[in-house]
Amino acid sequence: MAPHREGSDASVEAMVAQVEKHPISSILIIIAMQTEALPVVNKFQLIENPHSSFPKGVPWIHYHGAYKDIIINLVWPGKDLTFGVDSVGTISASLVTYASIRALQPDLIINAGTAGGFKEKGAAIGDVFLVSHVAFHDRRIPIPVFDLYGVGLRQTYSTPNLLKALNLKTGKLSTGDSLDMSPHDEASIAANDATVKDMEGAAVAYVAELLKVPAIFVKAVTDIVDGEKPTAEEFLQNLAAVTATLEEVVTQVIDFISGKCLPEL
Amino acid sequence: MAPHREGSDASVEAMVAQVEKHPISSILIIIAMQTEALPVVNKFQLIENPHSSFPKGVPWIHYHGAYKDIIINLVWPGKDLTFGVDSVGTISASLVTYASIRALQPDLIINAGTAGGFKEKGAAIGDVFLVSHVAFHDRRIPIPVFDLYGVGLRQTYSTPNLLKALNLKTGKLSTGDSLDMSPHDEASIAANDATVKDMEGAAVAYVAELLKVPAIFVKAVTDIVDGEKPTAEEFLQNLAAVTATLEEVVTQVIDFISGKCLPEL
Repeated sequence: MAPHREGSDASVEAMVAQVEKHPISSILIIIAMQTEALPVVNKFQLIENPHSSFPKGVPWIHYHGAYKDIIINLVWPGKDLTFGVDSVGTISASLVTYASIRALQPDLIINAGTAGGFKEKGAAIGDVFLVSHVAFHDRRIPIPVFDLYGVGLRQTYSTPNLLKALNLKTGKLSTGDSLDMSPHDEASIAANDATVKDMEGAAVAYVAELLKVPAIFVKAVTDIVDGEKPTAEEFLQNLAAVTATLEEVVTQVIDFISGKCLPEL
Repeated sequence: MAPHREGSDASVEAMVAQVEKHPISSILIIIAMQTEALPVVNKFQLIENPHSSFPKGVPWIHYHGAYKDIIINLVWPGKDLTFGVDSVGTISASLVTYASIRALQPDLIINAGTAGGFKEKGAAIGDVFLVSHVAFHDRRIPIPVFDLYGVGLRQTYSTPNLLKALNLKTGKLSTGDSLDMSPHDEASIAANDATVKDMEGAAVAYVAELLKVPAIFVKAVTDIVDGEKPTAEEFLQNLAAVTATLEEVVTQVIDFISGKCLPEL
């Protein structure tokens, strides 16, 4: 673990060092599903940018607008061109995070979305977590050091004042490209000490660190992974209600951020 | 399957339609590991481009050079900044494919690398496959249509003349972010009817299709997945010898491509 922690701390320091003492002026919200994104789009009256600098033909959608003193960019990877469903998962999340950072140079990234929660670790339906660490649970490479690379444990950008002010729960997030949980995934999630499980977070964190942009993760629980109900059923059942809660918390986060510098978060 | 096949055919047609009847002038070779890349770099006397248009700070390495009438670009995602190992897997592969296509506008992508092979499907150590289809085996999303999106079955760019001229084996490739194979992965790989298994191919194919660049996949077998030896051990044991074979086949592919238009492949 030592090499990782050194790496992460150094990166966080680099981020903070880069931040001049000016209030945050531009944020980038990355949201994987339209159902999760639209409440935020509507709340802040964001409009779709038909002239985004994304390549011609990609389904990625850039919404933007202004709120108080902040430019809000929200990027949703859109509907898959072949299958017509939301482009969920780590590959799309990585690509839109990369392309959006390059195009928009945000001060801060907020990856918001729904997640599965573990009741054994204190999660309940509708809970919103501000994530402390991210890692992957489906990248098993049993060769020394490659194993740690696969897990990719990263500390998120630390925002103790935000956490306290909004009275959010905090916990570790584990990311994988499957909605279900195989026994191998379950063992890795336990090793990651995760309270919540999603399909994008650790990928967004990887790209944000690569391009040295601080990132925070707001995850709302739609289903209890270690509960009775099947994940897909419970997820679909709670999706609408939980995305409303997610929008409320994202609004609180943006209200808190407004007028502050990064180190004040 | 129907929606997928329609999608793929339409994409392939779009690619071919875009191709003007000029010989291929620029190729992009994507290789995940330094050990796999260096024999090709040395063979074609490629040199590292210190002024690549990749963002400052990323570990991605762009080699380039000219051979006969072709500009050869080779991109290797480099060593992970935190862990110091090759940046293997789908996320890095997706990012470098995206960034390289944007920067270099290649006529054709060649994703070359090592793979695990299934002896039950006719693979042996040192075999080199020209891949017919790619799919993912670790993206299980048990919701209608999302399940197909997760699997992401794609036909590769069809090169019947190349296949015949080089007398290569052909088969389907299944991609996942783990070097090992869990029982869930095994079932998905069987469902994908895969002869070879890697950690990047389907991700490269996804991005290539997104940006409408034809892509082919040359995969050399370092280990037999359904054999006696543990994958990691067998992989490391055969890596050097098999990468030499891989270089020879990549050279044959480039020699064949030289002077030809895409539809002639």
